[in-house]
Amino acid sequence: MEELIIKGKAAKAAAAKLALTSADAKNTALCDAARALIENTEYILTENAKDIEAAKQNGMNEGLIDRLSLNPERIKAMADGIMQITQLPDPISEVVSSFTRPNNLEINEVRVPLGVVGIIYEARPNVTADAAALCLKSGNACILRCGKEAHRSSMAITSVIRKAIKTAGLPEDAVSLVENTSRESAVALMKLNGYLDVIIPRGGAGLIRTVVENATVPAIETGTGNCHIYVDKTADLEMAKNIVINAKTSRPSVCNAEEKLLVHKEIAEKFLPDILSALSEKGVEIVGDKTACAIYPKATPATSEDWGTEYLALKIGVKVVDSTDAAIEHINKYGSLHSEAIITESPENANKFLQAIDAAAVYVNASTRFTDGFEFGFGAEIGISTQKLHARGPMGLKALTTTKYTIRGNGQIR
Amino acid sequence: MEELIIKGKAAKAAAAKLALTSADAKNTALCDAARALIENTEYILTENAKDIEAAKQNGMNEGLIDRLSLNPERIKAMADGIMQITQLPDPISEVVSSFTRPNNLEINEVRVPLGVVGIIYEARPNVTADAAALCLKSGNACILRCGKEAHRSSMAITSVIRKAIKTAGLPEDAVSLVENTSRESAVALMKLNGYLDVIIPRGGAGLIRTVVENATVPAIETGTGNCHIYVDKTADLEMAKNIVINAKTSRPSVCNAEEKLLVHKEIAEKFLPDILSALSEKGVEIVGDKTACAIYPKATPATSEDWGTEYLALKIGVKVVDSTDAAIEHINKYGSLHSEAIITESPENANKFLQAIDAAAVYVNASTRFTDGFEFGFGAEIGISTQKLHARGPMGLKALTTTKYTIRGNGQIR
Repeated sequence: MEELIIKGKAAKAAAAKLALTSADAKNTALCDAARALIENTEYILTENAKDIEAAKQNGMNEGLIDRLSLNPERIKAMADGIMQITQLPDPISEVVSSFTRPNNLEINEVRVPLGVVGIIYEARPNVTADAAALCLKSGNACILRCGKEAHRSSMAITSVIRKAIKTAGLPEDAVSLVENTSRESAVALMKLNGYLDVIIPRGGAGLIRTVVENATVPAIETGTGNCHIYVDKTADLEMAKNIVINAKTSRPSVCNAEEKLLVHKEIAEKFLPDILSALSEKGVEIVGDKTACAIYPKATPATSEDWGTEYLALKIGVKVVDSTDAAIEHINKYGSLHSEAIITESPENANKFLQAIDAAAVYVNASTRFTDGFEFGFGAEIGISTQKLHARGPMGLKALTTTKYTIRGNGQIR
Repeated sequence: MEELIIKGKAAKAAAAKLALTSADAKNTALCDAARALIENTEYILTENAKDIEAAKQNGMNEGLIDRLSLNPERIKAMADGIMQITQLPDPISEVVSSFTRPNNLEINEVRVPLGVVGIIYEARPNVTADAAALCLKSGNACILRCGKEAHRSSMAITSVIRKAIKTAGLPEDAVSLVENTSRESAVALMKLNGYLDVIIPRGGAGLIRTVVENATVPAIETGTGNCHIYVDKTADLEMAKNIVINAKTSRPSVCNAEEKLLVHKEIAEKFLPDILSALSEKGVEIVGDKTACAIYPKATPATSEDWGTEYLALKIGVKVVDSTDAAIEHINKYGSLHSEAIITESPENANKFLQAIDAAAVYVNASTRFTDGFEFGFGAEIGISTQKLHARGPMGLKALTTTKYTIRGNGQIR
């Protein structure tokens, strides 16, 4: 696709300059971009209104229209987000390791930008500013491709940012947005080898699957969370109740929300009626295995599909298990490698769970909702990696970098 | 493909056990496997002879037959390689970072195995033992898929290793070899999502391209090296000559060998006749740009394709450039992100080159041949990553690991 080749070349050239740009220059450009977004509020809202109008005509649901909609406060929040990113330490040029070999070669492993980052996302205009700022801060050029419903809004934001960073002396092609909104342009971006160094999807399970299946550029999988909480027989049941209610109901649409509750058989009769009626009062739909349904008859039987499903809604799957080992086995079979928790007063079971569970974040006696770049203290988040290569769990700026070895010699040959 | 699903399930179950296996137990099993390979020399050679016989009948060339051929010394070398791996520190369980959040959540980032590693390679039986040992040492199960010409040899080696590690108390499915040798089985392995955590190709450019284009499992690109040496106008020309001869001729078939020579115009007339006749005497075929051919008429004109080609042979492309900047631009355009070198006495040009070149290893005044896990002191090498995600440059055991966050709380909710 010609547009992508042109943008790829331009981004690659911009990345070469950005890699040599100082932290101060990057931060100045980001401050300018933040200010420019606020100054151009009216223009951005005008373009956003066109997106919203079209979305309404196409029958987009209320929730999605809300995510698509901007207003002065939301534009201010975007600008504030960029300003926060300027306050983070610059990850580039850190010497990660340094050693001298017996032949006197001096080897340094130095942190450098990835180069050109592709980001594919859905109809959320605010991701445009956030992704562009994270990439710029970490010295990367980015090629953004947003959902077509948010295209006019994202284009407005992109053009404001491009103008601001150009005026600040940085290459405007450090940030670009794919103009072609066809499905083909998304797939072409995933296959833009030679120009893109990585592609990161930010969105739902469908988008992520499309990227995993189609990308020939290295991709980072993010975000699907079929998260479990296992309540052990030794659990403090009051603590367990608080955590389960928090993890399930505080924000059910996010990837670190609880989707499944596993309960040890010895406490099931005591704990389940209490927690499940509490969840039910909060509007949570409950499906369960045979034992759970027998103990709490208002639950409906879970299907085999339920155990692997991320609901992202006020719904929970409940299963009674015989042991910590059985809980571990179930989680490692059905989990999505995101966040898993055990509630227990047994140090032995806690350690076993921490060691054996295969997930980005494994909790003892805390809510899965803490799997988040800000909660972990990273100050920013590109996403939550649920794969094992490069980055796992909440990804801060460092996940947008790589290293290279620089080697100084005085004529060494092998 | 049913075989792969079965092997995938078995490997995943084995990986869950291996992740909890102590360093001592892994090392004991590896020592036993090394001993078993020597004890079964006769059996392995019998199977290898069948592969060689078939290869000869199919007209395989001498070089490839040599790489396919085993003898008692080569089996001993395989066993020694495994014993060396047992001596390396265990990368698993290292606490990479540790911090307590203001809400008292204690977060540890702990090094853990990747899980199940797929390795696709060509007709080199020794890779079977090497890959299996590296994976086992780092706590990973592996599914190997070798070139069909080496299948009987690799199957013999795999069965000896499986028996040895089983006797040592480890799951035999920690190591398995795909029995189906069709092209389809290779592609199916690259798409074995849900079972494989990573796929690593070990072989030539064609194999790597096939993996990059087909894999839906995260892949690590390794090994293509279109390596340049740039001789700056300030270079010590005697040093430059030694380094170029070493980098080009010491082992032309490997990925860290020099493929291109760039020379600053101010020294071209002095340096080129000397170095090119020296290379020519060592049997190196020389192609050059216009200026190089004018200075050294025995060179033949390079085609535009030459600049991007990894010869892996006694052939070199020569180009005269106007400046360090021009050399950097050429290398960043045509290089394969592997190893690049500048020969210079100018600290300014050295620094500029180190900063601006986009490659896994960037050298000042040393041969590109040092890009190698053993030369870097890593003690072992799975390959040399030429991509930027996860691992870059020579990959030691750490490249076969990931991390997970373990979080301990006392009832925290969000």
